Amino acid sequence: MKRSFIKVSEESLFPIQNLPYGIFTPKNEANPRVGVAIGEYVLDLSVLEDTGFFRRVKDIQEKSVFHQATLNKFMELGKDVWKEVREILQHLLDENVRDLRDDDELRNKAFYPQQEVEMHLPVDIGDYTDFYASKEHATNVGTMFRGKENALMPNWTHLPVGYHGRASSVVLSGTDIHRPKGQIKPKDANTPIFSACRQLDFELETGCFIGPKSKRGEPIPVDEAEDYIFGMVLVNDWSARDIQAWEYVPLGPFLAKNFATSISPWIVSMEALEPFRVEGPTQEPEPLPYLKNKGPDSFDIHLEVYLQGSDMDNREKIATTNFNYMYWSMAQQVAHHTITGCDLNPGDLLASGTISGTERESRGSLMELAWRGADPIKLGNGKERVWLEDGDEVTMTGWCQGEGYRIGFGEVKGQILPAK
Amino acid sequence: MKRSFIKVSEESLFPIQNLPYGIFTPKNEANPRVGVAIGEYVLDLSVLEDTGFFRRVKDIQEKSVFHQATLNKFMELGKDVWKEVREILQHLLDENVRDLRDDDELRNKAFYPQQEVEMHLPVDIGDYTDFYASKEHATNVGTMFRGKENALMPNWTHLPVGYHGRASSVVLSGTDIHRPKGQIKPKDANTPIFSACRQLDFELETGCFIGPKSKRGEPIPVDEAEDYIFGMVLVNDWSARDIQAWEYVPLGPFLAKNFATSISPWIVSMEALEPFRVEGPTQEPEPLPYLKNKGPDSFDIHLEVYLQGSDMDNREKIATTNFNYMYWSMAQQVAHHTITGCDLNPGDLLASGTISGTERESRGSLMELAWRGADPIKLGNGKERVWLEDGDEVTMTGWCQGEGYRIGFGEVKGQILPAK
Repeated sequence: MKRSFIKVSEESLFPIQNLPYGIFTPKNEANPRVGVAIGEYVLDLSVLEDTGFFRRVKDIQEKSVFHQATLNKFMELGKDVWKEVREILQHLLDENVRDLRDDDELRNKAFYPQQEVEMHLPVDIGDYTDFYASKEHATNVGTMFRGKENALMPNWTHLPVGYHGRASSVVLSGTDIHRPKGQIKPKDANTPIFSACRQLDFELETGCFIGPKSKRGEPIPVDEAEDYIFGMVLVNDWSARDIQAWEYVPLGPFLAKNFATSISPWIVSMEALEPFRVEGPTQEPEPLPYLKNKGPDSFDIHLEVYLQGSDMDNREKIATTNFNYMYWSMAQQVAHHTITGCDLNPGDLLASGTISGTERESRGSLMELAWRGADPIKLGNGKERVWLEDGDEVTMTGWCQGEGYRIGFGEVKGQILPAK
Repeated sequence: MKRSFIKVSEESLFPIQNLPYGIFTPKNEANPRVGVAIGEYVLDLSVLEDTGFFRRVKDIQEKSVFHQATLNKFMELGKDVWKEVREILQHLLDENVRDLRDDDELRNKAFYPQQEVEMHLPVDIGDYTDFYASKEHATNVGTMFRGKENALMPNWTHLPVGYHGRASSVVLSGTDIHRPKGQIKPKDANTPIFSACRQLDFELETGCFIGPKSKRGEPIPVDEAEDYIFGMVLVNDWSARDIQAWEYVPLGPFLAKNFATSISPWIVSMEALEPFRVEGPTQEPEPLPYLKNKGPDSFDIHLEVYLQGSDMDNREKIATTNFNYMYWSMAQQVAHHTITGCDLNPGDLLASGTISGTERESRGSLMELAWRGADPIKLGNGKERVWLEDGDEVTMTGWCQGEGYRIGFGEVKGQILPAK
């Protein structure tokens, strides 16, 4: 097994097999730049670029892509460049390679403890799309709103249902979330009222970022779709359920979602995820040809959700699920998204929709976990939750479990503050 | 009445009272820059900036805003700067002011015939939102889909229904539109098929562009909302009705709209529209306080739609309507959009939704004009239309009629090409 001279434990999120990309600024410095996480450190790629380690990758050097405040320029270069950069980094970090290992001066310049850097939103997100691709989630929600018989809409098994989200309010993990205010219609009222949200929820999702640009009018074939995906993050799609229930007919969720969507800071590359490729669920009925993918196109990513109330000493795990529950794959989402001619651009974010599994504890939202209030979740301190309360901090984490190592996503977290 | 030394007729779209902003490149030159339309000409603001005419407006000079390839930098400066720039331009173009009028060398450098420039998308659009703010349109659509009794959803009269659109596929007037392909479910089929769209439609809309940035978490009060609006364009929200009907439950329109949305190249400033401010329709029930605007907040903008088939010698007018039919005003849309905390950014586009009036000829989409196929529209050459056919060119235009002058929007047009 490949090892780095930067020592990591078996539980480390960031071994040499991972090397996720992020944007950071060292303490007391002004310029954000590109880094990769390795163990407890960030490796500053702008320093490696200046030293000339990427000179064989023309586009990197000429466009100065690792001195940028976003990953967009790197992402748009495509998978051959991503692969070359990964090779160079894995070589430089290898326990048996001396270039970086034995150069104290360079090591001092290039490594920062993660504790001592500020992370930034890694991407300038042009458009954000949110899918609804977990059958268990769609079935749960449909059952609660329309009964078991009509849970899934007729289109659901034929196409990955999705909608356009709000790109401007995608925020970095750690950003506080003020409880939103808006129009809600209480069950027993005839007219809506203006109120702080009473049914605030999280949604456990993943998101993938688009790398190369596609052309308007030219659909991406499903078997080329993964070439357009740079990597993945964790996404918490905060949701105001009462605002949503009132506003969403007939054009879909709007204000109930656009007050904030949190993402984790490190983008895990598809190359790092490759060993964890698995078959997704069987698709029945068979999808139309433009959605039919050859071979396995899901990934075995273990996912967890923790909640800590302001009156709790520790966070408690409230959900455990897996990305491979997803019915529609990322490749299918990309193919569907572009089939009428919509173009995708570097930095576009495609989120999965809530990831729920078959068991109660594998449901990815509080609405499903507490069945819309009918079945509150129990917390260890004798407390319960139906919806999120002020002070609650929600943390999502996830990883792929390899033999002796983990490909970790880090965390996406956020605390609910009272309405302003 | 104010007149320019650039002579214009009473029907000109671009008298000195208008001065809409756009981005253009002169023939045989490489750099896009900011211009205003005046009569048959474009006035190159980058030349005026270099000459020093804006030196009293510090932000213009320092940030070189008129040398940019988009209007975003100018738009974010806010209404005090917009007002100063308009004053300077109206002064310089005045028939009695000699600075520009009598300087032949400068005039040669600063004016280009509109015929000889290439126009560009004027704005880098961050997020695009589409509303559904015409009561007549929502009622027509609702009646066709759910019957007269249930035409309007219960929320419709309480809030401006809207949804997030796709920013990447907003294109400039004149861009060809290939008929999209996608999933549709024919009425008599049990399963969906993959097909070229059979129910291709236009939607006559206007759009407003956001200027200054608002802060996430800080709603914009309705009576300050207009300070955030830089100006307006015409919008054709092309729609694939059969794709929409199948895909839109429960999360709203997605691929049916995101293959292309066309906008007109000139942004008419709110200052130019100010003399045409009128009361909108009476709102009953009374909106919640955060949506209640003081004073008139609609505008008297005459709007027309023309259609020319490939077998027709001339375009024919197929709809005539007015912006002041809109039930929800732009100010109310901005206030609603931000009420849960969503931030708005320079260059965000907020479209009105289809603008339909009370009469048949005032309906803003072919679906409404031909009542979903039940009542085809008649064209002068003995032809009919139910949906758009390959070769059809749709042109929308609009203006405010002043006494002896017009504030024109120019045109947004696009031709339907066969599916690829």
